[in-house]
Amino acid sequence: MPGNSFGTLFRMTTWGESHGPALGVVVDGCPAGLPLEAADIQRELDRRRVGQSHVTSARQEPDTVEILSGVFEGRTTGTPISMMIRNVNARSSDYDTISRLYRPGHADYTYDAKYGFRDWRGGGRASARETAGRVAAGAIARKLLATAGISIVGYTVQLAHLRARIIDEAEIERNVMRCPDPQIAEEMVALVEQARRELDSLGGIVEVRARGVPPGLGEPVFDKLDADIGKAMLSIPAVKGVEIGAGFGVVELRGSQNNDPFILREDGTIGTATNHAGGILGGISSGEEIIVRVAAKPPASIARPQRTVSVDGKPAEIVVKAGTTQPYCRDWCR
Amino acid sequence: MPGNSFGTLFRMTTWGESHGPALGVVVDGCPAGLPLEAADIQRELDRRRVGQSHVTSARQEPDTVEILSGVFEGRTTGTPISMMIRNVNARSSDYDTISRLYRPGHADYTYDAKYGFRDWRGGGRASARETAGRVAAGAIARKLLATAGISIVGYTVQLAHLRARIIDEAEIERNVMRCPDPQIAEEMVALVEQARRELDSLGGIVEVRARGVPPGLGEPVFDKLDADIGKAMLSIPAVKGVEIGAGFGVVELRGSQNNDPFILREDGTIGTATNHAGGILGGISSGEEIIVRVAAKPPASIARPQRTVSVDGKPAEIVVKAGTTQPYCRDWCR
Amino acid sequence: MPGNSFGTLFRMTTWGESHGPALGVVVDGCPAGLPLEAADIQRELDRRRVGQSHVTSARQEPDTVEILSGVFEGRTTGTPISMMIRNVNARSSDYDTISRLYRPGHADYTYDAKYGFRDWRGGGRASARETAGRVAAGAIARKLLATAGISIVGYTVQLAHLRARIIDEAEIERNVMRCPDPQIAEEMVALVEQARRELDSLGGIVEVRARGVPPGLGEPVFDKLDADIGKAMLSIPAVKGVEIGAGFGVVELRGSQNNDPFILREDGTIGTATNHAGGILGGISSGEEIIVRVAAKPPASIARPQRTVSVDGKPAEIVVKAGTTQPYCRDWCR
Amino acid sequence: MPGNSFGTLFRMTTWGESHGPALGVVVDGCPAGLPLEAADIQRELDRRRVGQSHVTSARQEPDTVEILSGVFEGRTTGTPISMMIRNVNARSSDYDTISRLYRPGHADYTYDAKYGFRDWRGGGRASARETAGRVAAGAIARKLLATAGISIVGYTVQLAHLRARIIDEAEIERNVMRCPDPQIAEEMVALVEQARRELDSLGGIVEVRARGVPPGLGEPVFDKLDADIGKAMLSIPAVKGVEIGAGFGVVELRGSQNNDPFILREDGTIGTATNHAGGILGGISSGEEIIVRVAAKPPASIARPQRTVSVDGKPAEIVVKAGTTQPYCRDWCR
Repeated sequence: MPGNSFGTLFRMTTWGESHGPALGVVVDGCPAGLPLEAADIQRELDRRRVGQSHVTSARQEPDTVEILSGVFEGRTTGTPISMMIRNVNARSSDYDTISRLYRPGHADYTYDAKYGFRDWRGGGRASARETAGRVAAGAIARKLLATAGISIVGYTVQLAHLRARIIDEAEIERNVMRCPDPQIAEEMVALVEQARRELDSLGGIVEVRARGVPPGLGEPVFDKLDADIGKAMLSIPAVKGVEIGAGFGVVELRGSQNNDPFILREDGTIGTATNHAGGILGGISSGEEIIVRVAAKPPASIARPQRTVSVDGKPAEIVVKAGTTQPYCRDWCR
Repeated sequence: MPGNSFGTLFRMTTWGESHGPALGVVVDGCPAGLPLEAADIQRELDRRRVGQSHVTSARQEPDTVEILSGVFEGRTTGTPISMMIRNVNARSSDYDTISRLYRPGHADYTYDAKYGFRDWRGGGRASARETAGRVAAGAIARKLLATAGISIVGYTVQLAHLRARIIDEAEIERNVMRCPDPQIAEEMVALVEQARRELDSLGGIVEVRARGVPPGLGEPVFDKLDADIGKAMLSIPAVKGVEIGAGFGVVELRGSQNNDPFILREDGTIGTATNHAGGILGGISSGEEIIVRVAAKPPASIARPQRTVSVDGKPAEIVVKAGTTQPYCRDWCR
Repeated sequence: MPGNSFGTLFRMTTWGESHGPALGVVVDGCPAGLPLEAADIQRELDRRRVGQSHVTSARQEPDTVEILSGVFEGRTTGTPISMMIRNVNARSSDYDTISRLYRPGHADYTYDAKYGFRDWRGGGRASARETAGRVAAGAIARKLLATAGISIVGYTVQLAHLRARIIDEAEIERNVMRCPDPQIAEEMVALVEQARRELDSLGGIVEVRARGVPPGLGEPVFDKLDADIGKAMLSIPAVKGVEIGAGFGVVELRGSQNNDPFILREDGTIGTATNHAGGILGGISSGEEIIVRVAAKPPASIARPQRTVSVDGKPAEIVVKAGTTQPYCRDWCR
Repeated sequence: MPGNSFGTLFRMTTWGESHGPALGVVVDGCPAGLPLEAADIQRELDRRRVGQSHVTSARQEPDTVEILSGVFEGRTTGTPISMMIRNVNARSSDYDTISRLYRPGHADYTYDAKYGFRDWRGGGRASARETAGRVAAGAIARKLLATAGISIVGYTVQLAHLRARIIDEAEIERNVMRCPDPQIAEEMVALVEQARRELDSLGGIVEVRARGVPPGLGEPVFDKLDADIGKAMLSIPAVKGVEIGAGFGVVELRGSQNNDPFILREDGTIGTATNHAGGILGGISSGEEIIVRVAAKPPASIARPQRTVSVDGKPAEIVVKAGTTQPYCRDWCR
């Protein structure tokens, strides 16, 4: 069954494997007339790109995007926008052993269970590299949302036990951790380096905020705004939890604390005094900031030996040659 | 836009308002030949029904279901199964004031923002009463899954600060809290009673486990099993967070701890030694138990006075007459 | 797999069998604020109702519709509109023999092939009675379209060899054939009576025209307006062909004849001098009248003996007792 | 709104414009393990390719396909199969004038009406060149269906007044008209040449037959097999009508003639003595041959001068320089 499309009015369909010839996305439903050029996409792909620092994967990929359709004379035409990124640094020999072993924490086993046959090179379709297509589509979405006054920002709020104490958005792009607290960002880098020395990896929490979302978006009762956001987030590799506003913290609050009192804003519109709801009530945006947090597991690719089972059903151990292949932070933090 | 259907192969479409003539669901895609009678549905609706104890809503509704189509001579025919529940105790006068006020924590304001016009009686479509249709559809799904050896169990693991310490599933149906720890269940009831006396409400966490799920279910990369489960959970009224397996706890784990080593089970099949993944790897079931937790906010309907704004944009306060109307635990715990 | 929903933004889901307790439809996506009452639906159901004359089925069904949700104080709320029609005259004994025989031209055999089990009473879900749900949903659509200045009219243009020579729309509702040519309508009634005496049935062609459709509707390249219309038409029981504008007649035209020259209308807008395209170019409405024709096969239920095969795979013959049961014109002309 | 995907379990999403950098298709839902190589796709693209004879378009495009994902070691992996065809002979200067005129019979005007902005080069997305993506996806579908014993054949049965009198399928690939009657094929070629000399074009009818389709396919009541086929056919450029089995011919038949008597085949299975139903009853396949016919209008691109309107709303005339550009048979017969 097809599962590689997301969205109803603005729909993306991603394709491509970690070590195949290319990967990409088709965006269908983007309105006509939006100014768009490859540089708009490239900017976001460059932000996503691994190999930018010593805390991420060593794989070097230029990730150069080509727009193949749907744009004419610098503007979208309303027809499907197809974008492609050629894989360059796709040496499948790096991954020979994983063709015969099920890596713990990876999808090798479940892909075999589902399809009976898999492209084992670099995790194939299950690789986090697949998210390049999402980022390309997201770059268009970001431009489109901006025309409606909506902006979205995301950042790392926690890595292992290290939690950002301040949210200074100006800091986010200044450090490789994309952490809004410069002091904690430095500690995070140190902690990653320590974990790497210990041949291990770390989990984290990312927070995303959307501003300027008008009240009234979301389609109850199943396509609620938070339900759709939750699905999108949980479809990202390594994400194991998602919460809106106060999220799991609601269990510590009483109704009288959690309910956000409605108030009149100075401009006469209606808002709320607090925002435990994270900008969504009854599955519909309230006009307050949309606040989402996701938990990303520690990357499954670690250099430490791990016991596992081989594809032919025998006990095995995975050993990674020191300093060579799959970096400990390759999955979630790029 | 339509948002009241869920599912691709087995699809439910729910309809109905809290105080309208009736509510119900159409299930489309259920295979033919499944034995089904109203009693199968009624059993689950009776479990859901409020008014069963002093810890839930006072509204008395028999919630008698009628199967209107799709069943012939005691078996499903493969055609749509329509089920209807008449509203009986629908005195809209109880809610007169809420036609003119936006209740904090409720969807009154956002429904007005979206639709410009709303059925304000008892929250209309945003009422948790809407879930009756889901329960009816779920009763069929449960029967269908049973034919494949799959069973699902859910229970309350936390209420405010009270956390179940043991999971004795035999206890679940024995107490009104549906808590698997009998001692904690008693404490929960006492805490609810106390909160009610204080005109307040409490949040909680529910855990759901699915057993017998074969490896291979889920459709990467967007319709991953966890993504679809997450959407379903977040579409339930009052749910503000969802997590799979170790969930947000992954942030405290290192890769070497979180990765579940593959092992050979005694029957020769492949399993994992631990289950931090919650039975899902790369968005596909692994054959291990599926584990999901959701956070439900404290019910928004509290008897304590709350400040708010009226529909005509004036500051207001909601006062509930003591002991009369909207119970403090009406939203999530039924 | 579910197949009982139609539409993307305005979506209907129909349910119900010919002789089950009830049948109906859920309309999801209708905008809020549309004035709507049961009488709006009943009017169209009364037009559809069989038993209105001697040329249609003898079954007597009042087809009284009840609106169960989605309407509050006389206006739609934007939530699902559920409508139900109870079956009254559902004497399944009339159909005992058909539980054991595959009626030629009917779906008895294919339903068994697909589902392995079927509600054989009156054709079950395959009965043309299923269209009651569509008519109810269509009544809402008609009201909604009227707010945008769009109107739709349909009529019988051909029955067997009898073809309407004039299209006087004022005549349509005046005769039981819904034929816009009063003289031909009379001949059609006589021909039906003759066919009935000969225990046989007749095929026909219906034409539908939509006016006031603005240019720009339709979603290439697969959800073209004509593609969606074609699907809708071919999903109606008994329909075996559909054509747009000149339709199959294009084979007799040259490009220079078939191309509709663009012209400037008096109001300065752009139109076409002719309308061979039937109001659709490249799958998008042009602003000209949308013209659709469908061919309906002669109703399969005829009183004449027919050879067939029984459900247990033996040669058989269907004999209908004279003047008793299944009328010859029951399928398409109601 | 997105409209460039077709199919539920096996879904294709096409993209690309006539004169853009490339065009292609993503096939999602193809089962894993199907042997597939570029040559399988290329074979069908070569059959579709224009410029093969003097009766089709003069544009020379090699239409070389590249498989970018979803295939590993010669077999499909169950993940999306992305295929791309670079446009080579895309001299947009050929079409300069059409940027300022609405060509009769083309979608120039309706695209402007819908999107407000269009890629006018060669018709952009509305060009029949778009079907290359469909053909590539269809090549995979054909291989997949073959594994289930299903085969599909299509051919020209009529061009203007010339109708094939015999259906000799061995002849189809032997002539450029893809006509199963060799004598008529010759007359068709002569007629096309004559029409070209007269600067005009001709319409035709194509028949498609599917064999080996098991009984039981199709999803009533809206996703009936004939409804889905009809939608697919009407989404093809230039198609103005579609019919199943006896099609519009049913109007000349009585029920006793049109009903196909069920019979026992020699192998003990159930079939029908005739096949007016075209292999579909109640929207479900019967096991008999599926028979579909579509009417394709005469190609809109003719060399004869035509009056029209310019994009700035002024009367205009289109004149094509003799022997230079848009051939009269470029749309439907390739």
